[in-house]
Amino acid sequence: MNEEEEVLKVNHRFYQALSDLDLEAMERIWLHEVWVSCIHPGWQMLRGWENVRESWRRIFTGTFSHRIDIGQISVQIHGEVAWVTCLERISTPTEDGGDYTFAACTNLFVSTLSGWKMILHHASSVPVEEPTPPGMQVH
Amino acid sequence: MNEEEEVLKVNHRFYQALSDLDLEAMERIWLHEVWVSCIHPGWQMLRGWENVRESWRRIFTGTFSHRIDIGQISVQIHGEVAWVTCLERISTPTEDGGDYTFAACTNLFVSTLSGWKMILHHASSVPVEEPTPPGMQVH
Repeated sequence: MNEEEEVLKVNHRFYQALSDLDLEAMERIWLHEVWVSCIHPGWQMLRGWENVRESWRRIFTGTFSHRIDIGQISVQIHGEVAWVTCLERISTPTEDGGDYTFAACTNLFVSTLSGWKMILHHASSVPVEEPTPPGMQVH
Repeated sequence: MNEEEEVLKVNHRFYQALSDLDLEAMERIWLHEVWVSCIHPGWQMLRGWENVRESWRRIFTGTFSHRIDIGQISVQIHGEVAWVTCLERISTPTEDGGDYTFAACTNLFVSTLSGWKMILHHASSVPVEEPTPPGMQVH
């Protein structure tokens, strides 16, 4: 597996953990440092693993069920740092099938002895008309 | 000047260019590659320098006057990649003094032979109550 594939695999695990509301998986994905950052849509910027972990705990506790698909994925690697930009589709089940919102996303990773670890996640709401925009693979 | 200071200087130049609506300065700040990315608040993700440049041109053409101050600045450097997170305060003059909006921001830079160049800008609106939140230096 080349480096890009390794990064995309960790990025995929991140979205799997997010879809599954799996805090333990999220803990394995992030680097536990005071300088990591996370910006959820409409939230203040969070800094430090403890604050980032607490935000995921709150989100996972407050969410009954959702599913995240991603598309328009781009990955870049320079030395020990990698970043992925992508479009997130957040699907929430409703009585008449489902509701969609979209977020544009920047994910930053650093290479460690335990593999690539997430060090920054920045997601922000974007207006998208179609339920399946170009470049969005939904399974 | 150490590397952190160099990065912060380029980050400062970016906000100066943004405040001044100065497209030529913006051109000097960014790396002109097809893989650079930019996410303006509420916009779709843009990829490639041509699209990013065009977005700044449109923003600068459509803005009469504004001023950007930043605070809560954090900088990290790993090898040839640096990233800054900060809170932007966008001030727009109005009849009764001014109006403020805030954005949380991730800026990514890469080290080149011509110095640090911006390769990603992601800004997203955040709700902030006070006109001068903690960590915001306004001159």
